[in-house]
Amino acid sequence: MSTVKLVEYEEAGAEVRTVYDDIRRVRQTDYINNFWKALANYPAALQRVWAAGKEVMAPGEIEALTKEMIYIAVSVANACEYCVHSHTSAAFGKGMTEAQYGELLAVIALAQQNNGLASGMQVPVDEIYFQK
Amino acid sequence: MSTVKLVEYEEAGAEVRTVYDDIRRVRQTDYINNFWKALANYPAALQRVWAAGKEVMAPGEIEALTKEMIYIAVSVANACEYCVHSHTSAAFGKGMTEAQYGELLAVIALAQQNNGLASGMQVPVDEIYFQK
Amino acid sequence: MSTVKLVEYEEAGAEVRTVYDDIRRVRQTDYINNFWKALANYPAALQRVWAAGKEVMAPGEIEALTKEMIYIAVSVANACEYCVHSHTSAAFGKGMTEAQYGELLAVIALAQQNNGLASGMQVPVDEIYFQK
Amino acid sequence: MSTVKLVEYEEAGAEVRTVYDDIRRVRQTDYINNFWKALANYPAALQRVWAAGKEVMAPGEIEALTKEMIYIAVSVANACEYCVHSHTSAAFGKGMTEAQYGELLAVIALAQQNNGLASGMQVPVDEIYFQK
Amino acid sequence: MSTVKLVEYEEAGAEVRTVYDDIRRVRQTDYINNFWKALANYPAALQRVWAAGKEVMAPGEIEALTKEMIYIAVSVANACEYCVHSHTSAAFGKGMTEAQYGELLAVIALAQQNNGLASGMQVPVDEIYFQK
Amino acid sequence: MSTVKLVEYEEAGAEVRTVYDDIRRVRQTDYINNFWKALANYPAALQRVWAAGKEVMAPGEIEALTKEMIYIAVSVANACEYCVHSHTSAAFGKGMTEAQYGELLAVIALAQQNNGLASGMQVPVDEIYFQK
Repeated sequence: MSTVKLVEYEEAGAEVRTVYDDIRRVRQTDYINNFWKALANYPAALQRVWAAGKEVMAPGEIEALTKEMIYIAVSVANACEYCVHSHTSAAFGKGMTEAQYGELLAVIALAQQNNGLASGMQVPVDEIYFQK
Repeated sequence: MSTVKLVEYEEAGAEVRTVYDDIRRVRQTDYINNFWKALANYPAALQRVWAAGKEVMAPGEIEALTKEMIYIAVSVANACEYCVHSHTSAAFGKGMTEAQYGELLAVIALAQQNNGLASGMQVPVDEIYFQK
Repeated sequence: MSTVKLVEYEEAGAEVRTVYDDIRRVRQTDYINNFWKALANYPAALQRVWAAGKEVMAPGEIEALTKEMIYIAVSVANACEYCVHSHTSAAFGKGMTEAQYGELLAVIALAQQNNGLASGMQVPVDEIYFQK
Repeated sequence: MSTVKLVEYEEAGAEVRTVYDDIRRVRQTDYINNFWKALANYPAALQRVWAAGKEVMAPGEIEALTKEMIYIAVSVANACEYCVHSHTSAAFGKGMTEAQYGELLAVIALAQQNNGLASGMQVPVDEIYFQK
Repeated sequence: MSTVKLVEYEEAGAEVRTVYDDIRRVRQTDYINNFWKALANYPAALQRVWAAGKEVMAPGEIEALTKEMIYIAVSVANACEYCVHSHTSAAFGKGMTEAQYGELLAVIALAQQNNGLASGMQVPVDEIYFQK
Repeated sequence: MSTVKLVEYEEAGAEVRTVYDDIRRVRQTDYINNFWKALANYPAALQRVWAAGKEVMAPGEIEALTKEMIYIAVSVANACEYCVHSHTSAAFGKGMTEAQYGELLAVIALAQQNNGLASGMQVPVDEIYFQK
C-alpha cells in the first residue's frame, strides 16, 4: 500500500526501461528497488538521479564501501527511513562486516552526541580552522 | 567573544588537566581545541566524552580517516558548524587528499538529495530490506 | 493502532465540535483527518493551531497551492511522515498536477543537495547578502 | 577569512571559466557568489551542480519565484545559513514583495510547528492518504 | 550588519509599540531582543507569535524554567543558533544553575546519540508502545 | 519483521545478560525494550550506552521526569520515531500527566515555529548574549 505509484518494467516507457536495464547491468541483479520505481514517474529525474548516483558512488579516491557508509551517516542524521534501509542493505552487499557495522553505528552516535554538545554550547570555531 | 567560558590549562583543576594531557599525548600536539575547553566546565562530561571519542575514533575495523569522513557526514546533515570545521581539519590532518574531500562532498550531496526524494515521495520500504 | 487517542466527533466536547464544524465548513468535506483528532485531546491547542493554519494557509499574496508546496518542502526536510502525506494529498486536492509535483520534488532535492554542499564547505556568506 | 578556497575567475582553468561565463549569462550579472567559487575547487562537481540548478530552477510548470520560495523553505528547515541568505536574496531579485516574504515566513513557521506536533504525537497516517 | 531590518521602538507603528510595551512589562526589562525587532517587519506575525509565546511559556503544569530547557533542546537539535543563544540566556535569567545546565547538555547529548542509534538500526517500535 | 536482529535474554552471552539484569533491576520491570535488544548485537556499545543513560537520566539537579521531557524534545526535532514512542511511554511511566504532556507538546511546537522564523530571517545574535 503506497501513495506513490511504483512503475514496473512491463508498463514502463522506453526511457525508463533504458535506466532499469542499466541499473540491472551495473548492479548485476534483476531486482529494481522501490526508490527507482517511484522516481520512474518522472523519467527525466530518474535519468539524472541514476546517472549522478552511478558516477558518485563508483569507487574512486574513496572506495565503494566507504561511500556507502558516508551515505548511511547522512541518511541517519536526516531520519530518512527508506535510505537507511536501502543503503544498509547495499553496504552489507558490498562486504561490510558486522564488526564494521557496529563501528559505523558508534561513529554516527558519537558525532550525533558531539553535534548536540557543540551546538548546545555554541562553541566558537577556533581561529586555526579558518587557516589553511 | 563567546557565551561559553573556555577553560585554559592554567586555570583548570586536576581532573581537567589529566584529560588535556591525554588529548595532547594521543593527538601529539599541544593544541587543545575549543570544544574541549568549553566542555571542561563540566569535568565529568569532559572525561566521558573524551574517553568515548578516543575509543570510537581509533582505527579498528574501519580506519581512522574513514571514521572522520563518517563523522563529517553526520555533522553536515545536522548543520553543526563547529563540528564540520573541526573534523574537516582533523580529516586533512589524517591525510585526506583534496580529491578524496571532493568525493566526500559529492557523496554527502547525493545522499542529501536522495533523502529528499525518498522522504518526499514517502517511498515504501521494500520487503527484501526486512529480511536478512 | 496508535499511541495517541483519536477524538471522534461523537465523543467530543463543545469546544472541539466547534473546531471540527469549522474544519468541515472551510474544507467543504466531512472528513476530519487524524492530525486534528489527535490534537483534540488538547482543546486549547486545537483551537489555536487550527486558527493559525486557517489564516496562514488561506490565499493571500501567495496563492494557496504555492503555500502547500512550501509546507511540503519544510515537512520533507524535517522528515515528518504524517505531514508529507497529508499535505501532498492537500496539494493534489488544490489542483497540483503530476508535472508540478515532479518539479516540486526536483527543487526540494536540489536544495537538499546544495544545503549539503554549502554546509559541508562552510562557504562564507557573501558581503552583498548583508546589504539591502 | 575562510576555510575553503574561493576560486576567482582570473586563476580559474578553462572548465571553471566556462561555467562562470554561463552563470553570468543566465543571471545577467557579473557577480559570481561564493557558493560557486567554493565549488570550483572541484570542476566536475561545479559543472554538474550548475547544470542541475539551471535546469531545475528555470520556470516550468512551477514559476521561478515559487521555486525560490520552496528552496528557501528547505534551507530554513535544514538551518543552512548560506543557502537561506543567497536564496532569499535571489527571491527578492526575482520580484518577491515584502508582503510575500512575510507570508513565506508564516507558512514555514506553521509547517515547522505542525511537524513538531505530528511527530510529537506520532499521529498515525490516515488510510485515505495511501489511496490515490 | 544584517539582512533583516531591525525595527526600533522609535520608528515603530502603534501595533508594534503595543507589543514591545507588553514584552517590556511581562519580562520586566527595557531590552527588546533582535528576534522581535526582526519580526516587527510583519506586525500581524509579531502579535501572533508574541501572544503564543507568552501563553505557552508561562508557568503552568510545567514550570517556566523547565519550559526553557525543553525549548533549548529543540533549538539545539534544529541547530538554530539564534534560539540557542537567546533561550540559554533566558534560562539563566530564570535561575538555571551551572550544574543544571551541565545536566541539560548531558541529556540533549544522550538523546542525540540514541536518536542516531535507533534510526541507524531502524529499531522496530515495541508493540507495547502502541497500547495505552 | 525487522532488519536488525533482536537479541533475547535466552540466547545472549554473559556480557549482555549482565546489562539486561541491570536494566531490569534499575527499572523494576522484566520488560527489555527493542532498543536494547538491537544494541545487544554490539555488547561493548550496549554496556557503554546503558551506563551513560543510567547516569545521565538519573535524578540530579534536574529531576527525572524533566529529563524525559528534554529527551522527547530532542527526539521530536530529530524525527526519531522509536525514541519518541519509547520516551513518551517512559515519561508517562514517571508520572507525566495529560496536562503536562499537552504543555510539553505546546513548547516543542512553539520552539519549532520560532526556530523557523529565526533561521528564516537569519536574525543576528544580540551582543548581550555573548557576554556573561
